[in-house]
Amino acid sequence: MNAFADHPHRRFNPLTGEWVLVSPHRAKRPWQGQVEKLPPVAGVAHDPKCNLCTGNLRMNGERNPDYKHTFVFTNDFAALTPDAPSDYRDDDGLMIAEGESGICRVLCFSPRHDQTLSRMSVEEITYVVDAWVEQFIDLGSKPDIGSVLIFENRGEVMGCSQPHPHGQIWSSRHMPNETAKETDRQLAYFKEKGRAMLLDYVEKELKLGERVIHENDHFVVLVPYWAIWPFETMVLPKRRIGGFDEFTAGERVSLADALSNIAIRYDNLFETSFPYSMGFHQKPTDGEPHEEWMFHAHFYPPLLRSATVKKFMVGFEMLGSPQRDLTPETAAQRLRDLPTVHYLDR
Amino acid sequence: MNAFADHPHRRFNPLTGEWVLVSPHRAKRPWQGQVEKLPPVAGVAHDPKCNLCTGNLRMNGERNPDYKHTFVFTNDFAALTPDAPSDYRDDDGLMIAEGESGICRVLCFSPRHDQTLSRMSVEEITYVVDAWVEQFIDLGSKPDIGSVLIFENRGEVMGCSQPHPHGQIWSSRHMPNETAKETDRQLAYFKEKGRAMLLDYVEKELKLGERVIHENDHFVVLVPYWAIWPFETMVLPKRRIGGFDEFTAGERVSLADALSNIAIRYDNLFETSFPYSMGFHQKPTDGEPHEEWMFHAHFYPPLLRSATVKKFMVGFEMLGSPQRDLTPETAAQRLRDLPTVHYLDR
Ligand SMILES: O=P(O)(O)O[C@H]1O[C@H](CO)[C@@H](O)[C@H](O)[C@H]1O
Ligand SMILES: O=P(O)(O)O[C@H]1O[C@H](CO)[C@@H](O)[C@H](O)[C@H]1O
Repeated sequence: MNAFADHPHRRFNPLTGEWVLVSPHRAKRPWQGQVEKLPPVAGVAHDPKCNLCTGNLRMNGERNPDYKHTFVFTNDFAALTPDAPSDYRDDDGLMIAEGESGICRVLCFSPRHDQTLSRMSVEEITYVVDAWVEQFIDLGSKPDIGSVLIFENRGEVMGCSQPHPHGQIWSSRHMPNETAKETDRQLAYFKEKGRAMLLDYVEKELKLGERVIHENDHFVVLVPYWAIWPFETMVLPKRRIGGFDEFTAGERVSLADALSNIAIRYDNLFETSFPYSMGFHQKPTDGEPHEEWMFHAHFYPPLLRSATVKKFMVGFEMLGSPQRDLTPETAAQRLRDLPTVHYLDR
Repeated sequence: MNAFADHPHRRFNPLTGEWVLVSPHRAKRPWQGQVEKLPPVAGVAHDPKCNLCTGNLRMNGERNPDYKHTFVFTNDFAALTPDAPSDYRDDDGLMIAEGESGICRVLCFSPRHDQTLSRMSVEEITYVVDAWVEQFIDLGSKPDIGSVLIFENRGEVMGCSQPHPHGQIWSSRHMPNETAKETDRQLAYFKEKGRAMLLDYVEKELKLGERVIHENDHFVVLVPYWAIWPFETMVLPKRRIGGFDEFTAGERVSLADALSNIAIRYDNLFETSFPYSMGFHQKPTDGEPHEEWMFHAHFYPPLLRSATVKKFMVGFEMLGSPQRDLTPETAAQRLRDLPTVHYLDR
């Protein structure tokens, strides 16, 4: 198996059925391409021009309350709305469109404008977890909502235009592509083996250890064997939980600890406010038990070489398969070796 | 069907089996996020420091010939190499890796350092098409090569670090994800209907007209019904061709004309050197006839609002489904209405 540390190979993602091309030594080639702007150094605790700060007017004329921990509102420019056109299908099945309805919300993580998950305490992050639980239950119980996707885009390089710490919740009638694939594959595994795929997986990774970054009472942070992004990670529970509605109080705190731990390591990796998209994959909210499904988070961070040089998923990646320039094991080692105290606090 | 012009819906991509979320009016929301650097204005015809210019030394110590039209060499930092480790599979099928061998080449489109496809004549582009044909036949006939992926990353925003006009060819033992999906889906359609899916599709689009941008003797440029990127297009032949090896001389010129036409329109859209990843999807090079397969090009351009504001495929897109902010019909209309004379020549 050691030849994989040095030679091009491809790895299979059992959650999606797709492959990633791994080219271990490609990160060594010289880079003369695009360099990203450094993120702005943390600013003020309250910005009178910020849409998300307490007490400010939003673009639609509503005023934000004087919230103490978290605050949720409906997205002023939602990609999904409650009403949807009816479906269309041509005779050959080449032009198929379906109405898609849904609800998009924004969740402020903190009243402090200059915070990030990496700078918040576990206690503060637990309030965010509580809000996610509440949102998942609220939206998931609506009859027209079959999927609740909770995510965060952090950093301008990830399309985030709003430095105030916040995430989004896009809930919709249909499952989107990625969770639909994960549902199919987890179900097939469950039917064959009578066990949840990701429960087997997390137990195996804990035994092997080489891709594990952090472990606490209830959660594990690891670089998946099939990671695409240079420093991609997953956060997995140690027992089978299908969604936020099944969390115990202890699990909420454990998840907050796991998120804090990986967010601090990420900031420490290149000593920068580390950009990523992250989000939670959960069971469909169709009221079925979904014993095959295991809750998890994916972190997809773009940086490859430094605070300003990212990995470009372009030509071959868009038209062929994703390709990575270092092995998942090397990435895990680097993240594991980092201090867990934030570099700004040292 | 008109409700789709105004309301969120999802469309099905019959080539991949995946969905795209279409939110027609979202491009109207204000944008306060990342702004890209403008590409440098075209420079010198020959740059003594360029790796790809005629007569220059490359990093590996080889000297480029004094080429007149195109020039091909093996990538100095290849993601794929001819030797590959043997395969590995754990007992549960959760950790699967396969050796992947291949050959990566670079193809210079022109000796002129300051060219782009949008600024080259149809005759000059035909030399590039000739080189693609030659490469597809050469690499495709090697026993260990099952897939030849030809592509171009244009612009720094698409990870291109080299302004000299060039593309790449990554050939490999296995089909990558995207062409593997397209093979499965085209084959299923062919088995059911006895016709090539994309031949039916192109005929239908020519009849409807609303997504067609340009048509010549042998090729059509259109915005696919299921486009993901704001101004994504496909280039399709009017008869069933499986790969470059089946091209007639007339088809080579027609393809060059189609590429020139869309590249000029793209530059004219925001009056900038328009970035994109583009590439050709072709039949597997396993020696089988592949009557289900139809050759085509995809253009994936990132710009959305202007020369400096792109679409971010991030949180919801990475964890859920791609989402677009204007309809494919609106995008086609805008591209169709543009002049076909380059803005720098007016
Ligand atoms: O080979 P290049 O041009 O150096 O690299 C570029 O194209 C490759 C193929 O799409 C990508 O893997 C790289 O991330 C990108 O920077
Ligand atoms: O909703 P926002 O933060 O304005 O927008 C950002 O996240 C969305 C969801 O991932 C994306 O569709 C947008 O392209 C991105 O800019």
